[in-house]
Amino acid sequence: MNRISIKDLYREPDLFLNQTISVEGWVRTLRVSKNFGFIEINDGTFFNNLQIVFDENLNNFQEVAKLTLSSALHVEGTLVKSLGAKQLFELKASVIEIIGLSEPDYPLQKKRHSFEYLRTIAHLRPRTNTFSAVFRLRSTLAFAIHKFFQEKGFVYVHTPIITGSDCEGAGEMFRVSTLDYEQLPKNPQGQVDFGEDFFGKETNLTVSGQLAVETYSMAFKNVYTFGPTFRAENSNTARHAAEFWMIEPEMAFADLKDNMHLAEELLKYLIREMLENLPDEMAFFNSFIDKALSDRLVQVLNADFARITYTEAIQLLQKSGIKFEYPVAWGQDLHTEQERALTEQIFKKPVFVTDYPKEIKAFYMRLNDDGKTVAAMDLLVPGVGEIIGGSQREERLEILENRMSQLGLNHQDYWWYLDTRKYGGTPHAGFGLGFERAIMYLTGMTNIRDVISFPRTPKNAEF
Amino acid sequence: MNRISIKDLYREPDLFLNQTISVEGWVRTLRVSKNFGFIEINDGTFFNNLQIVFDENLNNFQEVAKLTLSSALHVEGTLVKSLGAKQLFELKASVIEIIGLSEPDYPLQKKRHSFEYLRTIAHLRPRTNTFSAVFRLRSTLAFAIHKFFQEKGFVYVHTPIITGSDCEGAGEMFRVSTLDYEQLPKNPQGQVDFGEDFFGKETNLTVSGQLAVETYSMAFKNVYTFGPTFRAENSNTARHAAEFWMIEPEMAFADLKDNMHLAEELLKYLIREMLENLPDEMAFFNSFIDKALSDRLVQVLNADFARITYTEAIQLLQKSGIKFEYPVAWGQDLHTEQERALTEQIFKKPVFVTDYPKEIKAFYMRLNDDGKTVAAMDLLVPGVGEIIGGSQREERLEILENRMSQLGLNHQDYWWYLDTRKYGGTPHAGFGLGFERAIMYLTGMTNIRDVISFPRTPKNAEF
Repeated sequence: MNRISIKDLYREPDLFLNQTISVEGWVRTLRVSKNFGFIEINDGTFFNNLQIVFDENLNNFQEVAKLTLSSALHVEGTLVKSLGAKQLFELKASVIEIIGLSEPDYPLQKKRHSFEYLRTIAHLRPRTNTFSAVFRLRSTLAFAIHKFFQEKGFVYVHTPIITGSDCEGAGEMFRVSTLDYEQLPKNPQGQVDFGEDFFGKETNLTVSGQLAVETYSMAFKNVYTFGPTFRAENSNTARHAAEFWMIEPEMAFADLKDNMHLAEELLKYLIREMLENLPDEMAFFNSFIDKALSDRLVQVLNADFARITYTEAIQLLQKSGIKFEYPVAWGQDLHTEQERALTEQIFKKPVFVTDYPKEIKAFYMRLNDDGKTVAAMDLLVPGVGEIIGGSQREERLEILENRMSQLGLNHQDYWWYLDTRKYGGTPHAGFGLGFERAIMYLTGMTNIRDVISFPRTPKNAEF
Repeated sequence: MNRISIKDLYREPDLFLNQTISVEGWVRTLRVSKNFGFIEINDGTFFNNLQIVFDENLNNFQEVAKLTLSSALHVEGTLVKSLGAKQLFELKASVIEIIGLSEPDYPLQKKRHSFEYLRTIAHLRPRTNTFSAVFRLRSTLAFAIHKFFQEKGFVYVHTPIITGSDCEGAGEMFRVSTLDYEQLPKNPQGQVDFGEDFFGKETNLTVSGQLAVETYSMAFKNVYTFGPTFRAENSNTARHAAEFWMIEPEMAFADLKDNMHLAEELLKYLIREMLENLPDEMAFFNSFIDKALSDRLVQVLNADFARITYTEAIQLLQKSGIKFEYPVAWGQDLHTEQERALTEQIFKKPVFVTDYPKEIKAFYMRLNDDGKTVAAMDLLVPGVGEIIGGSQREERLEILENRMSQLGLNHQDYWWYLDTRKYGGTPHAGFGLGFERAIMYLTGMTNIRDVISFPRTPKNAEF
């Protein structure tokens, strides 16, 4: 007998109509009358359920009538046109085998649950409509990102997770160690002796793969990383997680313009892929999560992103007449309220802001000829604010070393990074896209905890 | 002017012949006579170099003649048929702009370097032929793995890296912490108080995403993880790294047979993809790394993998007459020498060995009806031994709990894992493929340090 996935049925129902097939899945809903009943099962291959119709001819009718939610079934029957309005077809069951009977205290009974509650059962929540849609989108989006870069010939680099260096000289880090806390080895000065640790020195979890991937761009020209990164910031907000995934492309022989071009192309590609490949999920998000979502995404797809300098942005904000909570002044970083004003009110489309004051940006960004600003770029999008941050990198060894000295960075720690400037350095540029931020942007989900399978946040590493 | 990648030239040289084009890249070799010269440049987009021909008509001929290796160039000129035997075409340069002059002490001068030496300059080694081939293959292989699973509708799950639980109850782990080592907080009993740590409890780096991904297979049916995993084992061998990537698919409504089928399909798919998409790199590996490589891979591609039980394997080994260093006895795990004898001498093709004694396998593997063995499977391949390990999982709650009790595992720590058996549990199965092992297998590279961009091993977390 044909063992069919529910996805196959929805794709080409005509292939299977009036045929005997078998499916497997979990009970999502159950309605039973005296001598017949309906079960909706979901097999995880598709967003929608399959309706099963059964009646008292079933030899285990009594058992089936008492099925609990989320029980696992094997069903055989004939696919027929449905008389109901809700679906086009249904499966008239001749056999319903109960593979795994769910216990009656299944925590996802049929009622609306809050996202907060569902976080406490993160191992079960992908069985709900919302999280089924979120995590299928997460998977499809991850693949779309790889497709985008691979089609362009970018080489995927797995940069190290455990690192002996601190990329941006900023960001609180998690220490990685095998030392016994109850008996820490000490050096003669009485300090903890990291020479005894697994790697023979202090190591941390990476906050970014950028510096490592830059070295590979000097070999492969176009490269990207896509992996987990970590921040030990004690910020309990809806937008921060201690563990999240990041996409970081890097291009040699490229400047800030090439960088903006790539970022715009990537964002549009991802929107297009989601709308084309996950129409049911996107319709769900638009109906139940954020009613402005589709319009916003289609608008972005059709817009030419604006490009302004930071200095222009400050002037526009000052002249806008909009009241801000935080002061708008040259030299200050843009707050989210100001970023959103630029993209939502002033330009009404995505905006690249470039050439920020060097003091508020990282040491590796390329110094502009004015000596005051660096070739940085942030991409701001409606509904979110900053979604991508990048820059052209400082390829001139002397200027880079000066900047590091000003910031008190130890050149010795970056010997390999500096080597890329010594041996055939070229103009190069790249950016970072937080994967979870991208998912939130594409779904309308507002809490980062709801787009990560098992989120890690302060005081929380459950599961 | 047409800005062309070297890959484009090799793909469709006829498109560009006798045309004026520009390319960018790094000097790999340079030969200069009194009034003309040859430069081979590589731009990272393709394994092979492009030959540049120049003569004294170049206005910076003297400068170009003194170019150092790995200098970055922008070259304009006409693509012409080559008179040399080595290449089909070359670029007759009208302009050679030096974008980044490499310092003369560039560590990769033109001579053979040992892999050991190249590890000390891991940031530069992708500029060599060998590592250019290895890391392009790594990228292509990673993408092929995603393609394989996505085409089959498997959902990609990012399982957590930081974990509060120890998957297999085995494997030494790295601790993740933000506690200040110089001032560790203590509880009233004088022990370190992990309640004060970032996550409010002791946390480690994951050794496997399996338990987490099993919960997702109960929602999406077919899922996989592909991410970094960690082992704090102090083993300084050519096959062990502290940080490596792992692929772990998991299928609901599936048994050991389905599992073997998927593993065989995956391995063949990956070999086919590499042979088709990276012919130059594969030819290089076959010439310079392992002359038996192509034959071995093609043989695997055409073989029906053998399937035997562990008990049969022990009998075959005992009857084989082969002398082993380690004893062959029922109840002992197979040593690599024995695995290799099975696949290389006895079967001369890949072999699945199934149904191992429960004592030598993990707690979550499904107990067979004999009460002595579990539904485990290892895939052994010629030249390597075990490359994939997997099992059907124990879906019966009571048997699983008994097994955990026997092994002293605290059920409370696994409450969410046990829930998957309570609420619609189904037969399910999956396996793990070490990504670096797969790369070594496909390239013939023999040291895991040479297939990881910046490897982490005991006493080594450089870069």
